[in-house]
Amino acid sequence: MNDAVLAGLLTDKYELTMLAAALRDGTAARRTTFELFARRLPEGRRYGVVAGTGRLLEALPRFRFDDEACQLLAEFLDSDTLRYLRDFRFGGDIDGYAEGDLYFPGSPVLSVRGSFAECVVIETLALSIFNHDSAIASAAARMVSAAGERPLMDMGTRRTHERAAVAAARAAYIAGFAATSNLEAQRQYGIPTEGTAAHAFTMLHTLKDGPSEIGELAAFRAQVDALGTDTTLLVDTYDVTTGVANAVAAGGATLGAVRIDSGELGVLARQVREQLDGLGATQTRIVVSGDLDEFSIAALRADPVDSYGVGTSLVTGSGAPAAGMVYKLVDVDGLPVQKRSSHKESVGGGKEAVRLSRPTGTITEEVVHPAGRAPDPTEPCRVLTTPLVRGGQVVAETGNAALLAARQLVASGLRSLPWEGLSLAHGDPAIPTTQIPA
Amino acid sequence: MNDAVLAGLLTDKYELTMLAAALRDGTAARRTTFELFARRLPEGRRYGVVAGTGRLLEALPRFRFDDEACQLLAEFLDSDTLRYLRDFRFGGDIDGYAEGDLYFPGSPVLSVRGSFAECVVIETLALSIFNHDSAIASAAARMVSAAGERPLMDMGTRRTHERAAVAAARAAYIAGFAATSNLEAQRQYGIPTEGTAAHAFTMLHTLKDGPSEIGELAAFRAQVDALGTDTTLLVDTYDVTTGVANAVAAGGATLGAVRIDSGELGVLARQVREQLDGLGATQTRIVVSGDLDEFSIAALRADPVDSYGVGTSLVTGSGAPAAGMVYKLVDVDGLPVQKRSSHKESVGGGKEAVRLSRPTGTITEEVVHPAGRAPDPTEPCRVLTTPLVRGGQVVAETGNAALLAARQLVASGLRSLPWEGLSLAHGDPAIPTTQIPA
Repeated sequence: MNDAVLAGLLTDKYELTMLAAALRDGTAARRTTFELFARRLPEGRRYGVVAGTGRLLEALPRFRFDDEACQLLAEFLDSDTLRYLRDFRFGGDIDGYAEGDLYFPGSPVLSVRGSFAECVVIETLALSIFNHDSAIASAAARMVSAAGERPLMDMGTRRTHERAAVAAARAAYIAGFAATSNLEAQRQYGIPTEGTAAHAFTMLHTLKDGPSEIGELAAFRAQVDALGTDTTLLVDTYDVTTGVANAVAAGGATLGAVRIDSGELGVLARQVREQLDGLGATQTRIVVSGDLDEFSIAALRADPVDSYGVGTSLVTGSGAPAAGMVYKLVDVDGLPVQKRSSHKESVGGGKEAVRLSRPTGTITEEVVHPAGRAPDPTEPCRVLTTPLVRGGQVVAETGNAALLAARQLVASGLRSLPWEGLSLAHGDPAIPTTQIPA
Repeated sequence: MNDAVLAGLLTDKYELTMLAAALRDGTAARRTTFELFARRLPEGRRYGVVAGTGRLLEALPRFRFDDEACQLLAEFLDSDTLRYLRDFRFGGDIDGYAEGDLYFPGSPVLSVRGSFAECVVIETLALSIFNHDSAIASAAARMVSAAGERPLMDMGTRRTHERAAVAAARAAYIAGFAATSNLEAQRQYGIPTEGTAAHAFTMLHTLKDGPSEIGELAAFRAQVDALGTDTTLLVDTYDVTTGVANAVAAGGATLGAVRIDSGELGVLARQVREQLDGLGATQTRIVVSGDLDEFSIAALRADPVDSYGVGTSLVTGSGAPAAGMVYKLVDVDGLPVQKRSSHKESVGGGKEAVRLSRPTGTITEEVVHPAGRAPDPTEPCRVLTTPLVRGGQVVAETGNAALLAARQLVASGLRSLPWEGLSLAHGDPAIPTTQIPA
């Protein structure tokens, strides 16, 4: 059930054939720096949220190749390369943005230093983790800011790969979601879980000859009986008005919540609020769900909605399911390198970054500078690059405390954005990035 | 490294609280049928491809709850429910479309029969698998038909969650992709892997004072030396014309292939073909990659491209990253049930399906009918519903032979489509579906 299995084969074949060629011609030992960054944000997005750092740090010690893996690799690798991989442990250094920090185009989210061999073989895994997790966290943060103070719940597990769902729940929690439906995310990361009920539970109570509303009442009574009155009853299986009446009949005026999963949610929320209040259930909350995204969440701001359940759009990054991160060689034995492919230029040399702000805390500019040569600005300035791994040993905090710290960092990051940066409309990145050349 | 771990917690919490409520009021034992289907295809798509069946059948015996899981579940479940889950084995029947078959709106892709308890707890896992895998296979099949006879390679691992990537490679292979870059997909499913090289390998060979082209030649020589002349050299790190000259200098006229990963691929492919032919490398293939999707693949039809590497658009379902499958209760103790939520209607009763065709093999109509009451058409007719699980035991073929059969089924399915069904342009489903009421 856990991820405590080896991760070495979660890798593109070419990483290992490049390794073989580099071991053979002696270049594998060259000291290199690779940088993981996004050349641009998804179309129209104002900011990104770094997520995946903690998962990479936890996966790194598991990035190994056991006998079974080596048997497969022996089909196309020579014995020197196999020997290297059998003993493989990443032994280099990694710096990077703290998980939960904002990022912008060109932000050096990770900087990986070591031999070419050890840096190149972890490329695929690092990209998979960051491209997935940052895509989800970036979309989730927009939903969180659209929802204001109202809590959001991740209900997207069924809309994505079963293990991606666990990472998605984690990324959403970092971005500020209050809870997830995913039990494995609770086990693995301690994320609070919540649940309501499905239409199937109501339909299960269908009577052979009776009207469906009687069956619905029986279902609600069964749920309240098993889970208490602080449960959430799904009221839209047949007719919302009858559903709400049945819900209050089953749960009483102290019923926790009702959920509406279809129809024109704003209109229904207003009707249901009125009906609940009229029945004395003034504290009963209204949960809405059903193809919500940041735009429809924002559109419900004026309506009496207490919380949102979000599925598909969350776990698919709301139109941007991959964050567009790349992992590029920028330095070989102290020599900055860069390619010249059209539209895919990279900037040579290892980099670090700081973020400038006004005295009020509103951020104004990101400055990416050559490693070790920090600028000396007159404005308040926060160092973004932090040590994550030294000599193969993880030196950053990991685990549940780090997860909560990442969640705090997203919250403070959203507060630090200039107001136009929180706009959901398409536009430029919230702040400009200055690249100081090497 | 493998998936031989328990899958029970890869589940939405509400499945288990519904179970608790149903065990308590005695409805958990009611005989139910749940159906997994898509209400509609993604916007403008003409057909979908069923994928995930094999993964679900392999996961089913692992859908259990061990002591660690039960300890977590004890936080919110009563002892009767815990006892049920500790002993849980799915013991029902599953029918469904064979993996690799086409599907259309309303096609009963899976039909799951058993007690409410055993059917409801596997809902989340079944949906996760089918929503992910079918989204990838459906997008991949469009790319395969756009590419004609030219082979496609999955290079998308780095653009999606590291384990979703393995399932994506599998789904792409079912849809007709020739190979993947993902080594774990080779280990787990026997899918052929391929690899080229990255720009980093060329840049690794940068010389301190020499021109970059000399470093590129050294990199190509190292690759050919390690991997032989039947390798693929990446020629666009600096300048494509110099890159091709260096490639033939390193690999000779029998060089396997060159890869172009940026720029205007059609123009470059024509130039590179001419240059290769001029250098006598007439058999050297041209591989193109770089943000390809079904549309750009089709646009390269007239250009001298030998194969395509596809990444982001493949693993994100080319705009439709989740297949929109739902899992709905349709029958309780022999009584057809359905909900009436707006836009989310379902049709009650267990269903099966057949597909009608012309004598030429071109399909004309899908007929979804009440289970056990097959129509008796005059046209050629293929039964789509097949037994997958009986009494909890998998009765369908699984493993590598089943994977190859699924791949064959997609190929014959694409051949059976009316010509407008292969159009990449937005439009209606390729064939209409008739629902025969219960």
